[in-house]
Amino acid sequence: MELFYSRDIEGGICRLDHDESGHCIKVLRHRCGDEISVIDGCGTMYRCRITSDSHKGVEAVVLESTPDWGAHPYVLHLAVCPTKNNDRYEWFAEKACEMGFDRLSPIIGDHSERRILKTARVEKILVSAAKQSLKAAVPAVDEPVSVKDFIQNHADSTALKMIAYCFEDESVPRRSIKDVLGAYDGTEIIVMIGPEGDFSHEEAEMALAAGFIPVHLGASRLRTETAALTAAASVYYQHM
Amino acid sequence: MELFYSRDIEGGICRLDHDESGHCIKVLRHRCGDEISVIDGCGTMYRCRITSDSHKGVEAVVLESTPDWGAHPYVLHLAVCPTKNNDRYEWFAEKACEMGFDRLSPIIGDHSERRILKTARVEKILVSAAKQSLKAAVPAVDEPVSVKDFIQNHADSTALKMIAYCFEDESVPRRSIKDVLGAYDGTEIIVMIGPEGDFSHEEAEMALAAGFIPVHLGASRLRTETAALTAAASVYYQHM
Repeated sequence: MELFYSRDIEGGICRLDHDESGHCIKVLRHRCGDEISVIDGCGTMYRCRITSDSHKGVEAVVLESTPDWGAHPYVLHLAVCPTKNNDRYEWFAEKACEMGFDRLSPIIGDHSERRILKTARVEKILVSAAKQSLKAAVPAVDEPVSVKDFIQNHADSTALKMIAYCFEDESVPRRSIKDVLGAYDGTEIIVMIGPEGDFSHEEAEMALAAGFIPVHLGASRLRTETAALTAAASVYYQHM
Repeated sequence: MELFYSRDIEGGICRLDHDESGHCIKVLRHRCGDEISVIDGCGTMYRCRITSDSHKGVEAVVLESTPDWGAHPYVLHLAVCPTKNNDRYEWFAEKACEMGFDRLSPIIGDHSERRILKTARVEKILVSAAKQSLKAAVPAVDEPVSVKDFIQNHADSTALKMIAYCFEDESVPRRSIKDVLGAYDGTEIIVMIGPEGDFSHEEAEMALAAGFIPVHLGASRLRTETAALTAAASVYYQHM
């Protein structure tokens, strides 16, 4: 199924941006009168008929709209430290989007080697992944914040808050993410995943004080991006 | 933790091949008397002391061996059609290995666009992934076989056999992989994942006749490699 993406759908009129218009008219050779399907990135899919087939700016009239198209039964917010290798972060984001999640916060920890992330690239990847997996909602991507700011900003959140922390050479008791998810009957979930060097002791203490539950993701030692995807897969599986 | 890989451990003597020896001596600058940790790919980790530090062929004496090092509590055999893009297949293999699986069969379906796979490359990736995730067992990689041959070869298997098949425009009732795994109290599991174009109707019928249970991997439409990883993550989570 071929999907277009537009943030400009108003009053029954849908406009495609330059890139999407070029793809629609030049590549797929659509013309006035053709029907196309458009997602708004917020959860609604629109069936539209093209009324202006300029390859610079397609206009179409909305025939039908389907809210919650391809929606999942939970709200998952992943806060993940950027990986040294950008590709690994980008494929985690793509795969997590295919399964279903709602918001990505790149967080910078005391032990983070990579302290910047181009969110625009990740947003592009998430739009493609949402189209590919037939979802009308595209996960939001926040600008990077420090781990400590993220914890502070979510101290009052009533969501199920978890932090995947190794606590190597430490004795903080951890439950498995399966155990914690199984005991939760709400739908709002936040999971924090640390960098290659893990969270600092200070960050972990701060998270626990803010109500984050320390969890492990099973017996295997997982890379940052695999841990993040395992968290997404765990929530997806739990709600299957 | 730094790990080496050797298939040549016998009579208390461990030999590293040319590549591993070069890495050990030239890169990590180990010398006679140094202790190294070596996995045999079959599940045992050996603590050894170097007795010959040639960068072409390191020899070491075994001090201690730990069987089932980093083992997981199930036996997972994944039969996955190669993806059009090789990288996608390779990262699925890497990530599934980090979580834990035991055997990979590349299978070629009626609708497969890619009909070949370089197993040597995948094997190299699995060795690195096993080292990275601290597992002494490296998943076995079979030579590619046709989907139909694979089904025939496993018709008599008493493992829990599942086939992830869309059955689009078909009415075969499917259970979720979660439902099927939850009802199974054994440990041997086989999952078949089809190509971009899905299995053919004939292949699916043949699988069902051979005792494969038709399953879905949740509501999301997943790419082949994401479906394969979701299956691995499901088994990993179920046994967490």
